[in-house]
Amino acid sequence: MVKSRSIADIKPVFWRGGRVAWIDQRKLPWREQWVESSSVPRLAKAIRGLEIRGAPAIGVAAAMGIAMAAAKAPNDVSAIMRSVGSAGAALGKTRPTAVNLFWAISRMTDRAASLRRSGVTPRRLKSGLIDEALTIQRQDIEANMRMGRFGDSLIRDGDVILTHCNAGALATAGFGTSYGVIRTAWRSGKDIKVIATHTAPLYQGARLTMWELTRDGIPATLITDNMAAYAMENAGVTKVLLGADRILMNGDVANKIGTYGLAVLAKYHSIPFYVAAPISTIDPRGKSIPIEQRNPEEVRNILGKLLITVPGVPTLNPAFDVTPHRLVSAIITERGIATEPFPASLRRLTHGLLI
Amino acid sequence: MVKSRSIADIKPVFWRGGRVAWIDQRKLPWREQWVESSSVPRLAKAIRGLEIRGAPAIGVAAAMGIAMAAAKAPNDVSAIMRSVGSAGAALGKTRPTAVNLFWAISRMTDRAASLRRSGVTPRRLKSGLIDEALTIQRQDIEANMRMGRFGDSLIRDGDVILTHCNAGALATAGFGTSYGVIRTAWRSGKDIKVIATHTAPLYQGARLTMWELTRDGIPATLITDNMAAYAMENAGVTKVLLGADRILMNGDVANKIGTYGLAVLAKYHSIPFYVAAPISTIDPRGKSIPIEQRNPEEVRNILGKLLITVPGVPTLNPAFDVTPHRLVSAIITERGIATEPFPASLRRLTHGLLI
Repeated sequence: MVKSRSIADIKPVFWRGGRVAWIDQRKLPWREQWVESSSVPRLAKAIRGLEIRGAPAIGVAAAMGIAMAAAKAPNDVSAIMRSVGSAGAALGKTRPTAVNLFWAISRMTDRAASLRRSGVTPRRLKSGLIDEALTIQRQDIEANMRMGRFGDSLIRDGDVILTHCNAGALATAGFGTSYGVIRTAWRSGKDIKVIATHTAPLYQGARLTMWELTRDGIPATLITDNMAAYAMENAGVTKVLLGADRILMNGDVANKIGTYGLAVLAKYHSIPFYVAAPISTIDPRGKSIPIEQRNPEEVRNILGKLLITVPGVPTLNPAFDVTPHRLVSAIITERGIATEPFPASLRRLTHGLLI
Repeated sequence: MVKSRSIADIKPVFWRGGRVAWIDQRKLPWREQWVESSSVPRLAKAIRGLEIRGAPAIGVAAAMGIAMAAAKAPNDVSAIMRSVGSAGAALGKTRPTAVNLFWAISRMTDRAASLRRSGVTPRRLKSGLIDEALTIQRQDIEANMRMGRFGDSLIRDGDVILTHCNAGALATAGFGTSYGVIRTAWRSGKDIKVIATHTAPLYQGARLTMWELTRDGIPATLITDNMAAYAMENAGVTKVLLGADRILMNGDVANKIGTYGLAVLAKYHSIPFYVAAPISTIDPRGKSIPIEQRNPEEVRNILGKLLITVPGVPTLNPAFDVTPHRLVSAIITERGIATEPFPASLRRLTHGLLI
């Protein structure tokens, strides 16, 4: 008998009658503070300052920022095109490495150019750009829901799923990638439990994933990062499931620091290790993955609020690590599930999509 | 050419004319605050509340607590014996996993019983118990220095040693167990580097080990717990070296939560995994190791100062985990180094010591 459960829908960025609204993720879980603005510079500041984070969420915010700039422009096609161009330029300077940001900006400016070529009225140009931004948002949510259904086929009643960092609704247009799989399984009535790691040094697991799990009413337990092996041995973990920042065609996965260690521990305990990420995460030509080293202060001073060591001591602070494909059981995408041999499997899933 | 380096000596618990003094380790590294008391309940609170932590340090503190109770008792042998008994009972309830605590309490009560049988005066009974506590302290420091020399034989010039939690001077009567090995290697002029983990949820690695390493001038780098696998793969770790809270005769090791995961990661990376601990850590009859579950709030609220998740969410909070002997390369003690097969090796080292 399948129970059906409702879960809260969180859209971390949404369109609100000519303005963009977002939840300030720096404040979570302490405060649920929504911000609303019609100012492109204010929105750019929110992206730069991590009020909005997660590559797909940033892409949606930028698209809506361009739609907002168009909506505010005088009712004149040339004036609208100038506003679109300057909003795109401003938003493109916020986060230099987020691929989705540039992809969303290009899609909006291309759409503006094609509407203009078709000779629309200023009013239709404006509404066409708003539609395009809302389409980007809707398509991201739909892709996540498809990914969730594919991933759900791997989840069983009674599973205890260990996850890391946040690949939830907050990181996307809504619903989430790896967390979307958890939501789908829960919504379909499966009796699952989630164990979420702290995810030091920025604690996205404790702050964001636990906040989403609590809202959704999914049974969840928080652990420190160093309890993962104990949880696998003693707390019945049956699956590890997390997101990805970049995936090579050989199946190697770059994700939040700590992922590689979890993959080794999962292998040792014979626990399947699943990665869920959109096709856009796959890097068709990459041979290796450069690892960004972040500010050492993050390791010394927790969230900039609590110094936990001797001031100024040396640290390592890699933002990501690389999990070799031999430790990955499956990669879940919105087009299906890839398994070893990954080169063939990923080529099949990306066929016709990647250039 | 061997350089000789000096290092600072720290005694975290000491006897001060009828009172016990200790450094409040919860305050480190922010403040070096010494506390002094003649109250057994106050001392028990200090052990329970982690002002004093580390199995050997707890043992020394408990022994001194019993000596203090005896010293405060009326000058009557029966009254002293009653004080010794009730102090032992109170101190024995503070922490369930550390075998040194029970060992030290037994040693003190046995000594009291044997002094009584020999018909000493109340005054000689009191001074005999103070002597016994000071002997426990001195012997622990001497044992650590011997352990350091045995362990040093495993350390090579150029080693990068990953350690976890704090098994330094602060955790012992002085000098340190696994950290004593690092000190000995450093003092003998070896060119070593140390990588210390945060050690959530109480951050003994960040707070205490980094404090000791900095005082000693040993090159040290701090990482979050979830960076250990990355450090093994990318930062040249050549040894993992840490302490133990309890060791079974088959070589299974209970130590700070996170140890077991590090052992699995070390095995995967073919890095030797060394445990250094005094013979008193060995539990000659134990078949399994009870794991203390601590207050869930420690996982939600970092050091009681920074809430990092939704208030009240469930957590796991095991203080320790158990590393199976097949993941342990060697156990370094003050009587020599044990290796597989551990039952024979540990029996040889403990011969004549354990009943």
